[in-house]
Amino acid sequence: MSETSLVLMKKVEIIVKGEDLHNIEQLLVKANVSGFTIVPNVSGRGHHGIHEGHLLFNDMHTLDMLITVVPEPLVDPILAGLGVLFERHPGVVFVSDAWVTRKHYFETFGE
Amino acid sequence: MSETSLVLMKKVEIIVKGEDLHNIEQLLVKANVSGFTIVPNVSGRGHHGIHEGHLLFNDMHTLDMLITVVPEPLVDPILAGLGVLFERHPGVVFVSDAWVTRKHYFETFGE
Amino acid sequence: MSETSLVLMKKVEIIVKGEDLHNIEQLLVKANVSGFTIVPNVSGRGHHGIHEGHLLFNDMHTLDMLITVVPEPLVDPILAGLGVLFERHPGVVFVSDAWVTRKHYFETFGE
Repeated sequence: MSETSLVLMKKVEIIVKGEDLHNIEQLLVKANVSGFTIVPNVSGRGHHGIHEGHLLFNDMHTLDMLITVVPEPLVDPILAGLGVLFERHPGVVFVSDAWVTRKHYFETFGE
Repeated sequence: MSETSLVLMKKVEIIVKGEDLHNIEQLLVKANVSGFTIVPNVSGRGHHGIHEGHLLFNDMHTLDMLITVVPEPLVDPILAGLGVLFERHPGVVFVSDAWVTRKHYFETFGE
Repeated sequence: MSETSLVLMKKVEIIVKGEDLHNIEQLLVKANVSGFTIVPNVSGRGHHGIHEGHLLFNDMHTLDMLITVVPEPLVDPILAGLGVLFERHPGVVFVSDAWVTRKHYFETFGE
């Protein structure tokens, strides 16, 4: 890949109940995330799913997956916000490396 | 990112026919995977899709994508199991790095 | 993970309007991509979404996500093609590392 044309970012994938999606969106906007993608109606299964007395995800509970790709400095604020949210709402978050095209990123997301 | 709060894991993404989903779930539970997410009704397309005499994925065949994030030592057993399964059932698997929050991971997945 | 059995590839995730999916598929086939997966009906949201005078993604616009895993040399041609397409059609692309099983990859995708 052309290193010059690609920018390393962080992909954050969040899986939550549909009823908590709005909270996550508010959190992301507050953290200056400029855009995200929602994959609706995913299913979560877990057999160690007990957390504070209730099943973390019921078998086949309908959830939403939210994907956003952000500059690395935004990851910690997002995780901090999710940490608070996940104290009372079930959810998972995965962080991974992702590259975006420099031109595309700066044009699209306006930063 | 705060290295202290994040744990490196492996994300395993498996794409199979819906009728084979149950086999995959059994395989994951047997490999001690504590939870996973299913993205239903994805479509697979391939133009090199011949495998043992039948199309690997028919164009636009309806498939399911199963996503799980596991400790690295679980990857080999999962791939070994999938290897056997994929001898007779079409499917693909991708493995990538993903970070989870330590607190969240240990609380959520109970390990 | 067994390094011997896994091959490093690049995962390319493309998010576009459904009406542009066909163009993307043509581009991928032309770039010698042997297969891909479509996650239909994802939603895009962005609050910096102005590009050439129109909203990049309307709030909750219905989009499709296309996922393909390719050898690294295919990434640049794909990004070049997308660059041209994205001049007139909204979309995003993320590139990340992904490993596939050697045996599986060569058998499945026929290369």
